[in-house]
Amino acid sequence: MKAIVSLNSGSSSIKFGVFRLDEGNHPVHSAGGKFEKISIAPSLRIATDAGEVLLEKDWPEGAHLTHADLLDFLFDWATRHIESGTIVAIGHRVVHGGTRFVAPQRVTPELLDELEALSPLAPLHQPHNLVAIRTLARLAPDLPQVACFDTAFHHDKPEVAARMAIPRSLHEAGIRRYGFHGLSYEYIARTLARLDPALAHGKVIAAHLGNGASLCAMANGRSIDTTMGFTALDGLMMGTRCGRLDPGVVLHLQTQMGYSAKAVETMLYRQSGLLGVSGISSDMRALAASREPAAREAVELFAYRTAREIGALTASLQGLDGLVFTAGIGENDAALRADICARLGWLGLILDEEANAAHAPLISAPESRIAVRVIPTDEERMIALHTLRILCGDLP
Amino acid sequence: MKAIVSLNSGSSSIKFGVFRLDEGNHPVHSAGGKFEKISIAPSLRIATDAGEVLLEKDWPEGAHLTHADLLDFLFDWATRHIESGTIVAIGHRVVHGGTRFVAPQRVTPELLDELEALSPLAPLHQPHNLVAIRTLARLAPDLPQVACFDTAFHHDKPEVAARMAIPRSLHEAGIRRYGFHGLSYEYIARTLARLDPALAHGKVIAAHLGNGASLCAMANGRSIDTTMGFTALDGLMMGTRCGRLDPGVVLHLQTQMGYSAKAVETMLYRQSGLLGVSGISSDMRALAASREPAAREAVELFAYRTAREIGALTASLQGLDGLVFTAGIGENDAALRADICARLGWLGLILDEEANAAHAPLISAPESRIAVRVIPTDEERMIALHTLRILCGDLP
Repeated sequence: MKAIVSLNSGSSSIKFGVFRLDEGNHPVHSAGGKFEKISIAPSLRIATDAGEVLLEKDWPEGAHLTHADLLDFLFDWATRHIESGTIVAIGHRVVHGGTRFVAPQRVTPELLDELEALSPLAPLHQPHNLVAIRTLARLAPDLPQVACFDTAFHHDKPEVAARMAIPRSLHEAGIRRYGFHGLSYEYIARTLARLDPALAHGKVIAAHLGNGASLCAMANGRSIDTTMGFTALDGLMMGTRCGRLDPGVVLHLQTQMGYSAKAVETMLYRQSGLLGVSGISSDMRALAASREPAAREAVELFAYRTAREIGALTASLQGLDGLVFTAGIGENDAALRADICARLGWLGLILDEEANAAHAPLISAPESRIAVRVIPTDEERMIALHTLRILCGDLP
Repeated sequence: MKAIVSLNSGSSSIKFGVFRLDEGNHPVHSAGGKFEKISIAPSLRIATDAGEVLLEKDWPEGAHLTHADLLDFLFDWATRHIESGTIVAIGHRVVHGGTRFVAPQRVTPELLDELEALSPLAPLHQPHNLVAIRTLARLAPDLPQVACFDTAFHHDKPEVAARMAIPRSLHEAGIRRYGFHGLSYEYIARTLARLDPALAHGKVIAAHLGNGASLCAMANGRSIDTTMGFTALDGLMMGTRCGRLDPGVVLHLQTQMGYSAKAVETMLYRQSGLLGVSGISSDMRALAASREPAAREAVELFAYRTAREIGALTASLQGLDGLVFTAGIGENDAALRADICARLGWLGLILDEEANAAHAPLISAPESRIAVRVIPTDEERMIALHTLRILCGDLP
């Protein structure tokens, strides 16, 4: 029995999936889980798709466990979990592939150096992705590893969608709109092609609404525009990130209010978004349950801005045939989906309220000009598929 | 004979208009002009609406003339120009009224102090506006002056359109989306109400495309959203300003590339936009005439981004009935209007190519779902009208 492990290693959490390969070499999800609060008091939960909890563990505060310690623990667990089988490869989500890496790559020492050089483009994410790769390379030097880039799905979007109106020399130095959540969008595009091939050939906006949130405008299954730009700060309002922001605000906070660049960065990444506007929580569920006016304002702003950016991407696509909701909020928050869709009636979008309340796969009414779908995303599976392809050839 | 002078005093230029009051106290444009390159080698040109040049003058480099010197010269000229008449008031464009000044105000020493306190919100514009007021107060202490705010037209837009997804305390401290070009939009709204009352009651986007550029979404003649935000940097690409920019870029330039906040500010205000992308010129006419690929890229990006923001504001309006082009580029660049409109066919917009080429007032085809108009803006007249209203009561 062979297995592939997918890893998504962030600053305070590590998500992972274990996929057994069946006889046709198709990855079958075997278990998945997440380390959380890594640098404070790490916790781990592993479960099957069916919800069977395989392991729950909490480490005490002050245990001083590093990413490497936890990955060591996980690798050990995964090896025992697949019993007589073998882990044949590890796939990693790597946030930034820059302009050069536009498809998944087998990890080599040279690749790692090149990805390290891209860390300044995503200083809050890339280093954590690379620590995971280096740790596994030490634990299992002969195990193939594959880097899958969140930027790759957007790499061939039109040049106008990649360019910011700053001096050319900066664009050429890599200050351009890359876009992220590419593994999620690629999974959505593949799944939509199976569920509704005609729609997949059309003009579709995928709304990845989670703690991080963005939109991707797809024409015939390819990204042609997206709301995140150079960093994961831009575009939609998020749990703790500001999304689109007048660049003059960053300058004002520094030149007029005494903020350092670092303090602005912390504020825009960690204290803004739903948390900043509500003053209550970064979690949409907590805000939906709150009766505070500030909670309602935060949710309303989220819906308003999402609808506004859907308008912008519809202009990029020059029309719209379908809208797909995915990720934590997109898959589970029927009220928010209804709020966003109610703002899009002008596009001929008509929601089927019952289907929406039931989180049905298709939630638009038959007479709607726009098909609206809910598709659970699965970045870990996309990583496993890419890893398999790099090892064995084409995607199954 | 009574006259009103409208002044729009910027960092390197001062625009002005002289309006005689007819027997019904309606302002009639008598002359207008502009000082340019103030701190380098000032030049002045004054002409009538009919194009008759009344004065052309250049001062030598090194003459070290201040804004005050030039306003002194202008006041003297205007007094002689209206011959036996009297200047009865001066109206000023003042960029920022903050949250408090939502309508034009008669200038008092107290008002000036309050406007001075708003300078940090618009450090590149507000001080120059106020220098003009202080200078005229010294030259003619008894002459009534009126401050007309560029932010005022947007003051009652919905709260969601004013709020950024940053901590509440910053919103409450005034870090909010004000919007600018309000005198221009107010003039457009008034003029549209006369030209096409039905449309003026509908959902209209006004596109003020000049060296500065923004869009205003108007419902029933009132601003409900706009592309400029806290500063005049945000939104559309401009002559030398970046428009919408991932805030992460501002941070990256500082934390990874050694820029100071001041250097970023200069770059985003003065070296970006059409100039930055083309590397050739900030002037759309020069770019249209150029055969360089970089010039074409800059123009294409301008049109793409304008259409994209029209999509966003259409979502804010939840539909669109009309589009109005105004200001230098909007009034005169038929090719660019055609390019933008071609990207909006999905809204049912059909351009009348001949009418567009002729800069006709109505440039959409009869079968177009969106009415498209060209309306020359006149901020100086709007200032004169407001000044008159403050002096004499309601707007004529």
